[in-house]
Amino acid sequence: MSKHVATAAAQPGMPSDRPRPAIVFDRRRSERQNGQKNDRRIVQRGDPVGNIPSCRKVLGVTEEIRIRTFSNGLTLIAHPVPGANTAAFTLLVPAGCAYEPADRAGLAAMTGEMMMRGAGPRDSRQLIIDLDLLGIDHGGSVSQGPSQFHAAMRSNALEAAMEIFADIVRRPRLPEDELEATRLGALQEVLAVEDNPHQKTKQELRRRSLSEPWNRPANGTEQGLEAVTIDDVRRFHQRCYSPHGAIIAVAGPQTASEVEAIVERYWSDWNGLAPEELGPQEFRAGGMAHIEHTAEQTHLAVAWSSVSYSHEQCAAALAAIDILGGGLSSRLFTEVRERQGLCYSVYAALLPMRQCGLAFCYSATTTERAQTTLDMLARELARLSQGVTADELARAKARAKTALVMQRESCLALSSQLAYQWHLQGRIQTLTELQEEVDRLDERAIQRHLDEFPPRPATIVTLGPSALEMPDGIH
Amino acid sequence: MSKHVATAAAQPGMPSDRPRPAIVFDRRRSERQNGQKNDRRIVQRGDPVGNIPSCRKVLGVTEEIRIRTFSNGLTLIAHPVPGANTAAFTLLVPAGCAYEPADRAGLAAMTGEMMMRGAGPRDSRQLIIDLDLLGIDHGGSVSQGPSQFHAAMRSNALEAAMEIFADIVRRPRLPEDELEATRLGALQEVLAVEDNPHQKTKQELRRRSLSEPWNRPANGTEQGLEAVTIDDVRRFHQRCYSPHGAIIAVAGPQTASEVEAIVERYWSDWNGLAPEELGPQEFRAGGMAHIEHTAEQTHLAVAWSSVSYSHEQCAAALAAIDILGGGLSSRLFTEVRERQGLCYSVYAALLPMRQCGLAFCYSATTTERAQTTLDMLARELARLSQGVTADELARAKARAKTALVMQRESCLALSSQLAYQWHLQGRIQTLTELQEEVDRLDERAIQRHLDEFPPRPATIVTLGPSALEMPDGIH
Repeated sequence: MSKHVATAAAQPGMPSDRPRPAIVFDRRRSERQNGQKNDRRIVQRGDPVGNIPSCRKVLGVTEEIRIRTFSNGLTLIAHPVPGANTAAFTLLVPAGCAYEPADRAGLAAMTGEMMMRGAGPRDSRQLIIDLDLLGIDHGGSVSQGPSQFHAAMRSNALEAAMEIFADIVRRPRLPEDELEATRLGALQEVLAVEDNPHQKTKQELRRRSLSEPWNRPANGTEQGLEAVTIDDVRRFHQRCYSPHGAIIAVAGPQTASEVEAIVERYWSDWNGLAPEELGPQEFRAGGMAHIEHTAEQTHLAVAWSSVSYSHEQCAAALAAIDILGGGLSSRLFTEVRERQGLCYSVYAALLPMRQCGLAFCYSATTTERAQTTLDMLARELARLSQGVTADELARAKARAKTALVMQRESCLALSSQLAYQWHLQGRIQTLTELQEEVDRLDERAIQRHLDEFPPRPATIVTLGPSALEMPDGIH
Repeated sequence: MSKHVATAAAQPGMPSDRPRPAIVFDRRRSERQNGQKNDRRIVQRGDPVGNIPSCRKVLGVTEEIRIRTFSNGLTLIAHPVPGANTAAFTLLVPAGCAYEPADRAGLAAMTGEMMMRGAGPRDSRQLIIDLDLLGIDHGGSVSQGPSQFHAAMRSNALEAAMEIFADIVRRPRLPEDELEATRLGALQEVLAVEDNPHQKTKQELRRRSLSEPWNRPANGTEQGLEAVTIDDVRRFHQRCYSPHGAIIAVAGPQTASEVEAIVERYWSDWNGLAPEELGPQEFRAGGMAHIEHTAEQTHLAVAWSSVSYSHEQCAAALAAIDILGGGLSSRLFTEVRERQGLCYSVYAALLPMRQCGLAFCYSATTTERAQTTLDMLARELARLSQGVTADELARAKARAKTALVMQRESCLALSSQLAYQWHLQGRIQTLTELQEEVDRLDERAIQRHLDEFPPRPATIVTLGPSALEMPDGIH
């Protein structure tokens, strides 16, 4: 299907820890609350889903968000959504690939897959049969920091789903006779990236732009996967799947007390060690690199240093990225429309993490137009550092406020938002707070951010039939 | 990111006219109401969003769905969603690539893009600026039958969005000086398919399996795009963008009467010709074909004839496809788990159209395992024709009923569902009716369907470094 126009469509349920559409404004505040305090309760009242149309009941408007950190270190965030027909939860555990031994790249991904192959009273086959029989829509992924599990279901199946996922996370069987099937599946994932130039380019951009171990590919490597033994998997599970620093966010029609009772039943007696301390998460200038690749198109990515999720400039950084390459009226997209089909796709995005941020722009184009496109990207970054106009900011704010509302339309997306917000900044902001943060932005705030984090190419990765030259004016 | 397990995740807003996750049960009934009657009103009362939890208000439960066909031929479907913070609409117009002259492949896609380059009082730049300023999340696509436009917004922007889209559809400027940029963008889309083996394989499967003009690639061809003139675009717009057979579905917090008044204001004086009669939409056995392609993986697709959307067996066909390759406990996925990472991805899907249906299964695998995988697919199709078990059907029904609820969580997804339901069968089924249809399914109904539409490979397309042999037992 041909899209009439490229859109930076919001992907429901997409965690904030990965590249996300630049229209997502969120968070702020440099202070971070400590997520490890025992049995702390925070009740936030107010208007978690925004403006109240007169005489209409709004989802969740009279309900409370309940936050509780159990004595074992697990934090629950319960967001009642009265009247919802579905319920959903997102679970984050500090068990991503940054915790792998350096010579076992892919161990975290293999462990996540092995956990789905039988748990508690159910063997591998029975586990997926029961999940299907309950009509549970579920998935999981491994990032550098957390491993993530999510499930959405008809609301009356919440407790049944919670019981099964407590088995998966706490009591997986990790059967030795399924290790080879798991390894071969994981190897095919690594291979598939070779046929996906977009993913391959971004993987190399990350590898060059972040400090170890935050720059690792979550899928692992062929060599690392080949080395994994069943003991590696069992040790990794035992060491890393611990309630310390784990987060479970639940959204559904249940009251906060009902949710708290369910979570207490299945998760409060979970025990384990505090996660290993990892090295600092830092942006690094990665220079310019080319990946030789036989393809019809050339792919380009340019990265620079930006702010963390909890940084006070994060909303300003997201607005600047949106103005550069978010909406259809963004600078990059306008350049493409006016320059006669310069490239096939172009966008800019910000990946705000716990301790640093990675901003980048990306384009796929014909090989003959690749150098012109790269020069254009560099020129637009230089122009961005000189500031934005009031009109541009007004559009970015309107887009951000729509996105804030839309991201909460499903219980699954809402649970994901809440879990990653807590993971990234140790606090939850209501929709009203997030909207006010957007409202407060002005051109001076954007300029201050651009002065402090100038959008200058620090890492350039190109992939295609032939290498390109450094853009004009970059040294 | 590594997914722990492959999931057939529902894609919100995905129209039913394209390959969709096999868990989507819907429609039925062979009779089709005539969508062209003048000023017919149908009011459906009842429970459009399902079971009512005691003492809770459920979205839309007390509201009516209003259906009205205006005298110009446009059908409005208004679905109030009390309390929603967003509103959305989906517009379908019979202006897809099946209506193009044979030597102008890509004209429909280029026309859709040109319509976004200025309309009514706004030039190209002002149009996208105003859409961004209103925070409207919009997009469009061209299929073989309808062209589709959709927009989602904060609910108070519904009328403003409707006004702009009435300009885009009815009064586009189609500026000659933007034709070349549009053409080059469209050419890059065609080129990008060359780097996307999944899309390329499915495009060839469609080309071989459906009658002309229903087998065309919606993006067009290089040759066709090169030939398009500004007069072609203007003629195509004038001829095809007509209210006859057009559908607009709106979901949001507004009452049906409020929505009807807005649609009447901007669309009821739209005039145009009835769409051209096209040849019959038929499934054709396409034989076996190989596309030579340098890639790490080999891609396989196998198609057979199935039912149309309005066919009384459609729910049974969707259940059979789900059992074959929908959920994690489906036969194909189980085969892959047990056969040690046989392939990277595998699934089955059904594309039920107005007059026929295309069922297919798909896999991407290493080149050395490609023949084994193709043989496995053929073997599983033969086994499917012998029927399904009660347990398998129970799981498929549970999955379908969850999917029915989840597909309606956002106003945009709901408006898309309603528009395509009307397009494909000329009637709207409530959620309760759809759920009852699923409940009524039994193994005999599935067997009857499999006997009448046996899953035997009729078209096989492979893409990769080397051709494969016809699977055992297929001639």
